[in-house]
Amino acid sequence: MEITDRPLDALNNARNQRVIVELKNKAQVTGKLKAFDIHINVVLEEAEELENGQLKRKLGTTFIRGDMIVIISPA
Amino acid sequence: MEITDRPLDALNNARNQRVIVELKNKAQVTGKLKAFDIHINVVLEEAEELENGQLKRKLGTTFIRGDMIVIISPA
Amino acid sequence: MEITDRPLDALNNARNQRVIVELKNKAQVTGKLKAFDIHINVVLEEAEELENGQLKRKLGTTFIRGDMIVIISPA
Amino acid sequence: MEITDRPLDALNNARNQRVIVELKNKAQVTGKLKAFDIHINVVLEEAEELENGQLKRKLGTTFIRGDMIVIISPA
Amino acid sequence: MEITDRPLDALNNARNQRVIVELKNKAQVTGKLKAFDIHINVVLEEAEELENGQLKRKLGTTFIRGDMIVIISPA
Amino acid sequence: MEITDRPLDALNNARNQRVIVELKNKAQVTGKLKAFDIHINVVLEEAEELENGQLKRKLGTTFIRGDMIVIISPA
Amino acid sequence: MEITDRPLDALNNARNQRVIVELKNKAQVTGKLKAFDIHINVVLEEAEELENGQLKRKLGTTFIRGDMIVIISPA
Repeated sequence: MEITDRPLDALNNARNQRVIVELKNKAQVTGKLKAFDIHINVVLEEAEELENGQLKRKLGTTFIRGDMIVIISPA
Repeated sequence: MEITDRPLDALNNARNQRVIVELKNKAQVTGKLKAFDIHINVVLEEAEELENGQLKRKLGTTFIRGDMIVIISPA
Repeated sequence: MEITDRPLDALNNARNQRVIVELKNKAQVTGKLKAFDIHINVVLEEAEELENGQLKRKLGTTFIRGDMIVIISPA
Repeated sequence: MEITDRPLDALNNARNQRVIVELKNKAQVTGKLKAFDIHINVVLEEAEELENGQLKRKLGTTFIRGDMIVIISPA
Repeated sequence: MEITDRPLDALNNARNQRVIVELKNKAQVTGKLKAFDIHINVVLEEAEELENGQLKRKLGTTFIRGDMIVIISPA
Repeated sequence: MEITDRPLDALNNARNQRVIVELKNKAQVTGKLKAFDIHINVVLEEAEELENGQLKRKLGTTFIRGDMIVIISPA
Repeated sequence: MEITDRPLDALNNARNQRVIVELKNKAQVTGKLKAFDIHINVVLEEAEELENGQLKRKLGTTFIRGDMIVIISPA
């Protein structure tokens, strides 16, 4: 991610790049960041759920509700 | 789901397709996505609750409150 | 429940029909859906609380606060 | 409680009648419903806290914050 | 507390009287109700934290954030 | 803290005085109250985290998010 | 951090400085504060997750959702 003044600009710069999304329920979902909004709802393409860094299952194009998200960082 | 710029567009593209909805209480509900709103309240048709990937019970046309939803992905 | 484009339309179609409301505290309340609002606050008539599918107690006309609700499905 | 189209109408019809309020912390408070607002903050008169249906303590005129409320039903 | 139509009127009538505030973390704080707002943030004067009804510690003039409050009743 | 009609006035009167902030995660942070806003986000100067009343670590000038705060009282 | 009247001014003064962000899930993330908004969503550059003060993993440029944040203090 590149950096700009507002947090959502950083998400915008990460569009089409692979990210890891950590959820409040400890799950990690990785995928290509395709869309997000001000609630931090996100859509990941070719998403995969990870457990201890290992692939748990393939999710495909996945919508994640923003209020479950803790951290979004580069994959 | 097809992908567009906004997360809710991805939900819109998934209308009338079968999705899996994961809830904060670990339940999974699968069904045909018929309706959603900005709170991510959704209505699934022919909904079924799954436990460990197995059918637990048939729910019929089901309303799920948005703030319980973690992930929506293709079934 | 019949289905329309918006989730609350599905609730509207369920008015005067018996529904099962699942709560975040695992309780299930069944009754005739008489009223709801955008917060998903609902009023059930002849409501009964269920435990493992068995009648636990009769509640009468009951107000359920929307933010406690997980799922509303046909009884 | 009588029933009308909107959930808060049902609360209005219950004014001055005894109700049981169930809270998210499992407590039950019974009393005469004297006031409520759109957040479902309520005031009960001659309120009593119950434990397993038995009187635990008398509270007098009591304000209950709406976001703690699960269910309001006739006492 | 005297009673009026709106829940916050009941709090207003309790101004300068001693109240018990029960919190979501089970703590009880007693003191003279000096101020409150629509979020139910309150300020108590000569506040004391109680544990099992016994004085745990004196807090002095204390601000309590509204979203932690369960019940406010007369001391 | 001096007392006025609105809860935030009490916080305003506590500016530049040492306060103890109790958090939902049971942590206590003490420091000089330098800033706050309507969300009860606060900034403490020379902040210290306490454990059982003993210094756990020095934090320096510290921002605390309002929705984690339970009680603010004089140190 | 320097101090001003409003909490977000303190965050603004911390821009480009290393901070420690404590999360509700007990995780600590340290990095250079590059961006924040009124929800306290933040972006940290060269972010690292710490466990008991030790480096757990490098995260790179990281978005943290505001509602998970407890404390932001100087690193």
